[in-house]
Amino acid sequence: MVDSWVDSAERIGADLHLEPAGPGGRRAALIRALREAVRSGRLAPGTRLPPYRSLAADLGVARNTAADAYAELVAEGWLTARQGSGTRVADRAAPLRPAERSPARTPAPARGPRHDLLQGTPDASSFPRTAWLASYRRALQQAPNEVFGPGDPAGRRELREALTEYLARARGVRTEPGRVVICSGFAHALRLLFAPGGAVLRGPLAVEAYGLEFHRELLAAAGVRTTALPLDEDGARVDLLGRERAVLLTPAHQFPTGGPLHASRRAAVVDWARARGGVIVEDDYDGEFRYDRRPVGAVQGLDPDRVIYVGSVSKSLSPAVRLGWMVLPERYVDGVLAAKGEREAWASVLDQLSLADLISSGAYDRHVRRMRQRYRARRDRLVEALAARASHVEVTGVAAGLHAVLRLPSGAERSVLRAAAEQGVALDGLAAFRHPATDMAAQDGVVVGYATPSEHAYGAALDALCRALSPSARPARASG
Amino acid sequence: MVDSWVDSAERIGADLHLEPAGPGGRRAALIRALREAVRSGRLAPGTRLPPYRSLAADLGVARNTAADAYAELVAEGWLTARQGSGTRVADRAAPLRPAERSPARTPAPARGPRHDLLQGTPDASSFPRTAWLASYRRALQQAPNEVFGPGDPAGRRELREALTEYLARARGVRTEPGRVVICSGFAHALRLLFAPGGAVLRGPLAVEAYGLEFHRELLAAAGVRTTALPLDEDGARVDLLGRERAVLLTPAHQFPTGGPLHASRRAAVVDWARARGGVIVEDDYDGEFRYDRRPVGAVQGLDPDRVIYVGSVSKSLSPAVRLGWMVLPERYVDGVLAAKGEREAWASVLDQLSLADLISSGAYDRHVRRMRQRYRARRDRLVEALAARASHVEVTGVAAGLHAVLRLPSGAERSVLRAAAEQGVALDGLAAFRHPATDMAAQDGVVVGYATPSEHAYGAALDALCRALSPSARPARASG
Repeated sequence: MVDSWVDSAERIGADLHLEPAGPGGRRAALIRALREAVRSGRLAPGTRLPPYRSLAADLGVARNTAADAYAELVAEGWLTARQGSGTRVADRAAPLRPAERSPARTPAPARGPRHDLLQGTPDASSFPRTAWLASYRRALQQAPNEVFGPGDPAGRRELREALTEYLARARGVRTEPGRVVICSGFAHALRLLFAPGGAVLRGPLAVEAYGLEFHRELLAAAGVRTTALPLDEDGARVDLLGRERAVLLTPAHQFPTGGPLHASRRAAVVDWARARGGVIVEDDYDGEFRYDRRPVGAVQGLDPDRVIYVGSVSKSLSPAVRLGWMVLPERYVDGVLAAKGEREAWASVLDQLSLADLISSGAYDRHVRRMRQRYRARRDRLVEALAARASHVEVTGVAAGLHAVLRLPSGAERSVLRAAAEQGVALDGLAAFRHPATDMAAQDGVVVGYATPSEHAYGAALDALCRALSPSARPARASG
Repeated sequence: MVDSWVDSAERIGADLHLEPAGPGGRRAALIRALREAVRSGRLAPGTRLPPYRSLAADLGVARNTAADAYAELVAEGWLTARQGSGTRVADRAAPLRPAERSPARTPAPARGPRHDLLQGTPDASSFPRTAWLASYRRALQQAPNEVFGPGDPAGRRELREALTEYLARARGVRTEPGRVVICSGFAHALRLLFAPGGAVLRGPLAVEAYGLEFHRELLAAAGVRTTALPLDEDGARVDLLGRERAVLLTPAHQFPTGGPLHASRRAAVVDWARARGGVIVEDDYDGEFRYDRRPVGAVQGLDPDRVIYVGSVSKSLSPAVRLGWMVLPERYVDGVLAAKGEREAWASVLDQLSLADLISSGAYDRHVRRMRQRYRARRDRLVEALAARASHVEVTGVAAGLHAVLRLPSGAERSVLRAAAEQGVALDGLAAFRHPATDMAAQDGVVVGYATPSEHAYGAALDALCRALSPSARPARASG
């Protein structure tokens, strides 16, 4: 009997690959090795283990070490110990079933389309790494210790102050730090505003007939009914607003069709909000980027008590920095904070301090200016290329932003998208943005995100786009 | 008539405080100045403005400059221009109502209690600034450009790989990177798991009879019904689980009462999940911090297909870094990603890369080890101080974690909390954590977060705590 224990101990010992120098010493190494042996199935469920004394002798470790290891693994549930029946491998340690590895969910550059003209992202190669790192270092080094404790759900005061000053200067937003709440981006802001059971906003909510499907889905999941405002050359038909409680607009640059909301409409929607007790949610997603004149100021400036202004760094810096902001009428501040939670549970506090430094130091303005010039040059190249090589296409929405809309003859959108795919060009058609319930006439067009490629890749992307748009490309597809 | 225009232009011009050297040149300065004049009420609604030619002459700027400024402000809605009636101040530019500044919502150290022994946060003064900054710098400098584009909602692969290795080694978690989803902390994980309309988990959910009220509120807001499992000396009474679909547990260190879930209960809850098709949500909030023996491994390791394991850096590093992780059975991965959104909309991608570097470089382990020693020393000081100065108090739950529970005679909790407040000590009573629907007998006690103060403040906090606990403190309050 004793012999069999010794055998078993020797066998197990030989299997254990003990690393006496591993982290945590021999005891930890023994525990690790035994656990792995059970996990991997080398020690099968029900296997009786040698008494700890035998194992200790065989492995040349102290008895206490072996006894501790057994006790630990019993406590974790790998082993069971019963008076009289010794220590056994528990029979519930299920193996990790080998699953098919989930496919990579990010489109890897090597496997995706060769030319990425999808709207929605800035040039990832232009992130201001040096300036951001300098701000991050300063913020981290200067931060008082309380920064690393529980955070204010409103966000860091330093950032709310910097934003108050910046947004007044750059976007005509009138507010004070106490009305600014930091969030992780526009989608987070929408969720906070329409949190189920929350006390901030409820539907029905009017949205623009063309907009991001993701936002509509998010609202639907939150139980918010939406109505669709048709668009015309002056922007959203806010004159059609009725019993909605709120309206979601992109006044600086209608997304995705590209025009600004006309001054008369800006006035009319504020009048509507005042007369009906309604609220305007202003999505200022790319307000900094206007090329042919000064940016149009935010509607929020017209009536800070009727407009919830939302912005983020997703277009100006990068969506990798998960920071956005809401500028709220005073009466909504507490409700939004309640929806956010009693502590900062979302936006990285260190990133908040870093962004505050980036803004205060002027580096944020410099970056935006530099990117404005760069995107304007790209916009100009796009317009010139299309004028020269696809003059039948009308280019719209190019006064601002990071994307253009190419208007197409009725019915041509799908064939252009097919031709683009054939040229390795990724872009969206207008149909993808259309509210399913709108009665507005459908418009054919494609949305070209000209900020997305890196500088060196832009020329080739333009060439491929022009090839896809050339009239000869489409008949070829129709017959293919 | 012309004279009056000139007067008006002069008056307005004198008011405008033009800064010709300001950013954007004279045109921008004029726009800013006019906008401010309207905002502040110096130019009242309805006021007729001088023709741009007069204003230009008076201010000594080009006519185009003045005309542009008017056009801009009309576009923004500050001014109105009608054929024949000239340019006027719009009557809808409401002033920003001066609101009482919202009170600061974070307890400022200077105004809060003098001794912060609230549970839930690590020592904010011990954040590893140097190591974190080194990792952040490396991550930022080495990041490929695609990092700054739209992110995978699962989180960066680098971090999921580092966590897979770390959690296996340190917590006995068995997984693979494809089953790890990054989030911004435990509350975010709960929201993703129980998202309304989502496809992951539904109630009823069993929770421990003592736990975080914030989590119960979050679940209630998500429409999840909870039942309460009583606790005994072996932890949660998982033998009482019935028709619940899921159970939320803190197996390594019951929160807040402090004991580990007994091995037999660990086995029993896995058996329950297998027999009933239930799921265990394992909140491993402070699993790294166990002082008198090796940490108890995660229940997840017993059956990776029945346990959703959730952890974060909120205790190990700081709640200011908003990063957590979920380790999921394969069948839940897609549902959680769908709830999270089509892109990374939450956790800072740069922080993710930084944490991956911190773990891979070994700096995370070193920090955890250092903090474990530091907190153990604090725990020992607490136990010694109470033994010497408040020996009538039973100290429990001190084998692990960042807090202890001081058991009190029935009915004594409120008077101790009052005495503590009088001594400037902030701490929670056990009653704050009690599930409202449990039939478990109420326990009196206070929860002491001994990790919260900085090193130099800890001694004074202990002294004040002992004073509050001294038997003479309570009668004084009862008669006061």
